[in-house]
Amino acid sequence: MSQISPLAPATYPDVPIIDGVEIFTVNAGYKTKSRNDLTFITFAKDTMVAGVTTKNICCSHEVVICREHLKSGMARALIVNSGNSNAFTGKDGKEAADMMVQMAAAHLDCPKNQIFISSTGVIGVPLPKDIAETGLKKAFTAEHSDYIQAANAISTTDTFPKLAMSSAMIGGKKIHLSAIIKGSGMIAPDMATMLGYIFTDAKISSDLLQDMMSKANANSFSCITVDSDTSTSDTVLAFATGAAKNDVMTSYDSIGADAFFAALQDICLQMAHLVVKDGEGASKFIRIDIIGANDDKGAHNIGLAIANSPLVKTAIAGEDANWGRVVMAVGKAGEIADRDKLSISFGGIQVAANGHAVDGYDEAPVAQHLKGQNIDILVDIGIGEGKATIWTCDLTHGYISINADYRS
Amino acid sequence: MSQISPLAPATYPDVPIIDGVEIFTVNAGYKTKSRNDLTFITFAKDTMVAGVTTKNICCSHEVVICREHLKSGMARALIVNSGNSNAFTGKDGKEAADMMVQMAAAHLDCPKNQIFISSTGVIGVPLPKDIAETGLKKAFTAEHSDYIQAANAISTTDTFPKLAMSSAMIGGKKIHLSAIIKGSGMIAPDMATMLGYIFTDAKISSDLLQDMMSKANANSFSCITVDSDTSTSDTVLAFATGAAKNDVMTSYDSIGADAFFAALQDICLQMAHLVVKDGEGASKFIRIDIIGANDDKGAHNIGLAIANSPLVKTAIAGEDANWGRVVMAVGKAGEIADRDKLSISFGGIQVAANGHAVDGYDEAPVAQHLKGQNIDILVDIGIGEGKATIWTCDLTHGYISINADYRS
Repeated sequence: MSQISPLAPATYPDVPIIDGVEIFTVNAGYKTKSRNDLTFITFAKDTMVAGVTTKNICCSHEVVICREHLKSGMARALIVNSGNSNAFTGKDGKEAADMMVQMAAAHLDCPKNQIFISSTGVIGVPLPKDIAETGLKKAFTAEHSDYIQAANAISTTDTFPKLAMSSAMIGGKKIHLSAIIKGSGMIAPDMATMLGYIFTDAKISSDLLQDMMSKANANSFSCITVDSDTSTSDTVLAFATGAAKNDVMTSYDSIGADAFFAALQDICLQMAHLVVKDGEGASKFIRIDIIGANDDKGAHNIGLAIANSPLVKTAIAGEDANWGRVVMAVGKAGEIADRDKLSISFGGIQVAANGHAVDGYDEAPVAQHLKGQNIDILVDIGIGEGKATIWTCDLTHGYISINADYRS
Repeated sequence: MSQISPLAPATYPDVPIIDGVEIFTVNAGYKTKSRNDLTFITFAKDTMVAGVTTKNICCSHEVVICREHLKSGMARALIVNSGNSNAFTGKDGKEAADMMVQMAAAHLDCPKNQIFISSTGVIGVPLPKDIAETGLKKAFTAEHSDYIQAANAISTTDTFPKLAMSSAMIGGKKIHLSAIIKGSGMIAPDMATMLGYIFTDAKISSDLLQDMMSKANANSFSCITVDSDTSTSDTVLAFATGAAKNDVMTSYDSIGADAFFAALQDICLQMAHLVVKDGEGASKFIRIDIIGANDDKGAHNIGLAIANSPLVKTAIAGEDANWGRVVMAVGKAGEIADRDKLSISFGGIQVAANGHAVDGYDEAPVAQHLKGQNIDILVDIGIGEGKATIWTCDLTHGYISINADYRS
C-alpha cells in the first residue's frame, strides 16, 4: 500500500466476530507474492444473503454470477480475488470464475448457487486459472484470518483497510454487524460500489434483507463519488448467519426489524464514508447538502454535478473559496434551478444568495473552514422541498500520480 | 501566460483582415496592468450576426444580453472583458454590463441591441463599473489592433492566442473568414463553448447565418470537452459585414451557400480543436470515434463518457494502454451497448473485440502510439449505424496545478 490517506481513521474498529462466519486469506500470487490476495469466507448452513451490484453494462462475469446466485437467497461461501478484476475477459475469464465456484461448492458439498465471487483489479486480463486453482486449494486448508486481514486481502489501491461495525437489540438479544469494504478509485456507484461485505448473526429472510439492502444502498453507496467513474465490478453483499437465534425477521413489522434496519443503514453509511476517505489522492472529505430543490432526485443530481466537477474539486484541494464554481456546477446539472434564487454556504457561512455574493462578504472565515479536512457545502436551490446529501473528496496531484501509472 | 501548451501550433495563421471590422484592445486593469484585457471591435453598418450561447442555467448577464440582441440580427460592436466573468453578480453586474452597452451604442450612434458583450474570468465578482467605463473610453480613441492582439486580449488561462481562417468562392468572389477564440478550462460546451468570434466579409442574411452556426456548432464546439465543466459564459458569435458584396445569401439554395457553409464548418472545427489543444495541463490531443452505436445521439454520449472519464484521461497522460478503462466508460454511459460486441482500437490497432482482448494482443505498437501527441481511439459498439467524433485532451498534474490555485 502507498502512503496512508490523511483522512484515514486514527484507529480501526475492533469489529466483533460473527458466529457462523469463517475467514481465510492466502497469497495466490495474482499480482505479487508479497501480500494475501485471495479471500475465502465460509458461512454456516442456512445463511441468508442479499446484495446490490453495478449498473455498468460492461460488468464482470463475477457480477453476473452474484446476480444469478442472489436469486437463491442463500450463501455458503464468498471468494474474493484481488489484483485482477477479470472483467471484459470473455470465455477464458468466465471459465476461471466458474471453476472457482465449482471448487468451493464441491469443497463445501453445497449447490453452486450458494457460492459468491468477486474479483477486483485491472480490467481485460483473464484471471489465470492455474493461479486461481492453486490459491483456492491453499485457502481450503489455511489457518483462520481475522476481519482486518480480510479487509487488507481484498484491497487494491486502498491505502488502509476499511472495517465497520454496528449492532441492534432484537427481542432482547444483541445482534452484531461487521463489515469490510475496499475501493478508492473508479468510484461513482450507480447503486452499489466497489466490493463491500456485511456479516451479521441476525436471523432474517433473504427477501427482507434484500429490501433493506436496496434501501440502505440508496442513501449510502449511491450518494458517494470519487471520480465519476463507475466500476465494472461493484458489488455489496450482506450475509446473515442467523446464529443469534432471534425470531426470524420476515417483514418490517417483525420484532427488531426497525432496529436492525437502522443498524444496517448505519454500517452502510460508515462503509461508504470510508471509501471516500480513501479516495485516490484525497486530502479533504466533502459533504454536500442540497435543499430546496424541485424534488429529491433533482437534488441528488445537482449534488453529484457539484461533487463530480473537476473545477470544484480542485478549488477545494487548493483551499480556495471559489464558490463561483459551485454556481457553475448547479447550472450545468440539467435540473430545474433559478440563478437568482440560489443560496450557497461553506462551513455554515453563507457566501452567496439571490444571484450574487452576500453583502459584506468576508472570505476570511470561509478560507479558515477550507483549511480543515472536513468541508461542508450547503446549496439551497430555493424553489421546492427536494433534498439530498452527497459525499466526495477533493481532486489532487495524488489522483493523477496514482492513475497515470496504475498498471506500471 | 504560463508555459505554452506542448500541443500549440508551431506558427499562428496569418488571418486576413476582414473589411468592415475594426479592432481595438486596451488595458482596463480588471486583474492586471500588464496586458490588454478589454477588446472593442466595431462593424460596418448592416453587419449581420448569429450565434450560440451556453445552456448553463446560471449564465452571466452578458449571455442574456447576447441572446436578446441576437434577435435583431444586426451588429455594430462587440465588447469583451477578460479577467472577470461578471457571472452571478446580480444587480451590480447587470448594471456594469448594461452601462458598457449603452456607452458603445452612444459612441456609434446605433440601437443598443446592435451591441454585443462578453466577459470571462472568475465567477461571482461584479465587473467594476469605474474600471469598465474608463477602459472602454480608452478603447474609443485607441490605435487599431490586429487579430493576434485581440486573441491575446480575450484570453484568461490560455497559454497561446488562438486564431483560425478559412475562405470560400461565392459567385466568382473569394470571401474570407477570420476567427479568434479563447478557452482552456471549464470546457464542456453543451452547445457553444468559451468565447469565440468569427468575422467574415460575406453577405448573408442573419437567419441563414444563424441556421448555419447552429449546425456547425453541433459538429464542432459541441463535440469537445476538456473537463466536463460547462461555463456560465460560453458564447460563439459570427459577424458578417457583407463587404465582399456577393449576392446576398438567404437560403441554402443561394449561390455560394454550400461553399460558405463548408468554410464556416471548417473554421468552427479549427477553433474547437485549438481550445482542446490548450486544455489546461494537456499533453495529448485525443480523437475518439464511435461507430456502430444505436443512433448518433447514443454515439455522442458514449464518446463524451470516454472523453470525460478521469481514469481514461489519466491513463493516456501516463501513456498506458489501459483499454479496460475505455470499456468501463462505455458501460457507464447509460446508452445501449453489449459488452460482448464491443471492439476497441488505439491508433488503428485493434486491442479488444467480442468481449475480450484480441488473440495474440501485442501491446508494443499500442504503447508506441500512446507516446505520440495525437491519440486516436476507435470504439465500434457493434449494434447499429450511429456514429460520432469527440475530441478531448488528457488529464495531468498541470490541470491540478492550474486549478487548485487559479484565483491565488
